[in-house]
Amino acid sequence: MRLAVPVRVRWSDLDAYGHVNNAALLTLLEEARVSAFWAGGPEGSPTTAIIDAGPGATSVTVIARQEAEYLGQIPHHREPIVVDIWVGQLGGASMQVCYEVLSPDRSEVYARAATTVVMLDASTGRPRRLSDAEREAWAPYVEAPVEFRRG
Amino acid sequence: MRLAVPVRVRWSDLDAYGHVNNAALLTLLEEARVSAFWAGGPEGSPTTAIIDAGPGATSVTVIARQEAEYLGQIPHHREPIVVDIWVGQLGGASMQVCYEVLSPDRSEVYARAATTVVMLDASTGRPRRLSDAEREAWAPYVEAPVEFRRG
Amino acid sequence: MRLAVPVRVRWSDLDAYGHVNNAALLTLLEEARVSAFWAGGPEGSPTTAIIDAGPGATSVTVIARQEAEYLGQIPHHREPIVVDIWVGQLGGASMQVCYEVLSPDRSEVYARAATTVVMLDASTGRPRRLSDAEREAWAPYVEAPVEFRRG
Amino acid sequence: MRLAVPVRVRWSDLDAYGHVNNAALLTLLEEARVSAFWAGGPEGSPTTAIIDAGPGATSVTVIARQEAEYLGQIPHHREPIVVDIWVGQLGGASMQVCYEVLSPDRSEVYARAATTVVMLDASTGRPRRLSDAEREAWAPYVEAPVEFRRG
Repeated sequence: MRLAVPVRVRWSDLDAYGHVNNAALLTLLEEARVSAFWAGGPEGSPTTAIIDAGPGATSVTVIARQEAEYLGQIPHHREPIVVDIWVGQLGGASMQVCYEVLSPDRSEVYARAATTVVMLDASTGRPRRLSDAEREAWAPYVEAPVEFRRG
Repeated sequence: MRLAVPVRVRWSDLDAYGHVNNAALLTLLEEARVSAFWAGGPEGSPTTAIIDAGPGATSVTVIARQEAEYLGQIPHHREPIVVDIWVGQLGGASMQVCYEVLSPDRSEVYARAATTVVMLDASTGRPRRLSDAEREAWAPYVEAPVEFRRG
Repeated sequence: MRLAVPVRVRWSDLDAYGHVNNAALLTLLEEARVSAFWAGGPEGSPTTAIIDAGPGATSVTVIARQEAEYLGQIPHHREPIVVDIWVGQLGGASMQVCYEVLSPDRSEVYARAATTVVMLDASTGRPRRLSDAEREAWAPYVEAPVEFRRG
Repeated sequence: MRLAVPVRVRWSDLDAYGHVNNAALLTLLEEARVSAFWAGGPEGSPTTAIIDAGPGATSVTVIARQEAEYLGQIPHHREPIVVDIWVGQLGGASMQVCYEVLSPDRSEVYARAATTVVMLDASTGRPRRLSDAEREAWAPYVEAPVEFRRG
């Protein structure tokens, strides 16, 4: 199952070409990730209140790798665009988060991406195993990893 | 009358001090301004569909001056913070936009700011007078300009 | 006396209008400020090694207010633009930093700005008085505060 | 042959974890790319004055895909970090740009990355073939593509 997270494009995400900058796209993915998987989210999705991350938390999430395929340029939208997000893989201390970035009406696919997130213990800075609570909460969102053309 | 515009703080708006960076605050003000005054907004406020700005529009809005007073550091919030926005002054080809930046529950004032926006004709790049439609639409939102300590 | 700090404009500082975004300008000012006044700078200016700020430092610098006048739009430059920076005022626990933002060849003034910086003790988060060493180091850079048109 | 491009980390590139944000890294790569391959650069590298890109140019460079491996967290540096950049592949209308991101003293590898850049004709928005001048200029910088663990 995938979560559809609305993310608002900012005017300053556009570069001089008039489209969302390639690095700004990763910021949009980060916002979707934080909304979906960090604790205390207002989204009320079943997965919120799971990762205790962010400032002053006991966990730190670190990005180990990231891959993005840019299929179409993203213009400025007044309505939020949609980021479909799911778990491509659950590892010992890490998870692969997959994304499909869509236009507000879902008619166009702007990008596909995947992020490998590693969970660290904030006090030690060392990787920590995913908790059973996290695995249980994310199980429904595990799907086949996003496929890239890599051509 | 003031418009209360919800604006979402992004994780990347925080700097290494763990609070919204001083420059990022101006980006939040920009988002409030765009939501309130640019055309085609989904916010459905009476002022939307007024300024035909943004990419491919006939008008360009330029910032002539900006002033901000930082009263409290803005932490990461999952819920949008609130930007109260109003018009401090309507000039010939310009307007002063005023802001008060509040916590999600409006219990804390994070910042006060003002921006002087000049309307340019996109084709000529020259200032253009505010249209009667714009003056009419903004009249209800004209209030006394924000006051700064400047101490 | 003023310090002339070269600051590189990034491609992503431009917005869809093709000029440096109004908020990005404050980031350029921040970079000039950090280069000029934070400790351990490679710039070799007499003021470096003064403020012990930044990550893991004993001091935290907080922005109390900021004012900017945008005189000309800043295009993308391959060469760094120049930020003239000086101290407009030395207070008890604060200083006013003034800026004039110039084109690489100094032929055009893009902006004038001022920032009130308050020094906090990183451990307590409370304002701390400027040290004699700081006052001594900054004395040569004290000049009349930048003047704004203010409408 | 690789080009070693110095890139300055900005204070605002750090997020609340005190390290360069994952998306900000791509902005640093973009700056290295622009310095190395866009026209009119002051870097005086043999490749500058090659791609006529950027605002008002006849070409537009679009990112088709991007991949990054984050090996170490990047702290704030006063001196520029170093981005080694080379061409992993020259295609018909595209090129793969490869990067290794190093600490200022080159003692630590922070990241490895690759970007597939497609050249568009600015007037038509359609891909255009790399010119002979471009191929000739880039030939010396073609090396084996960066290798990712992809584990």
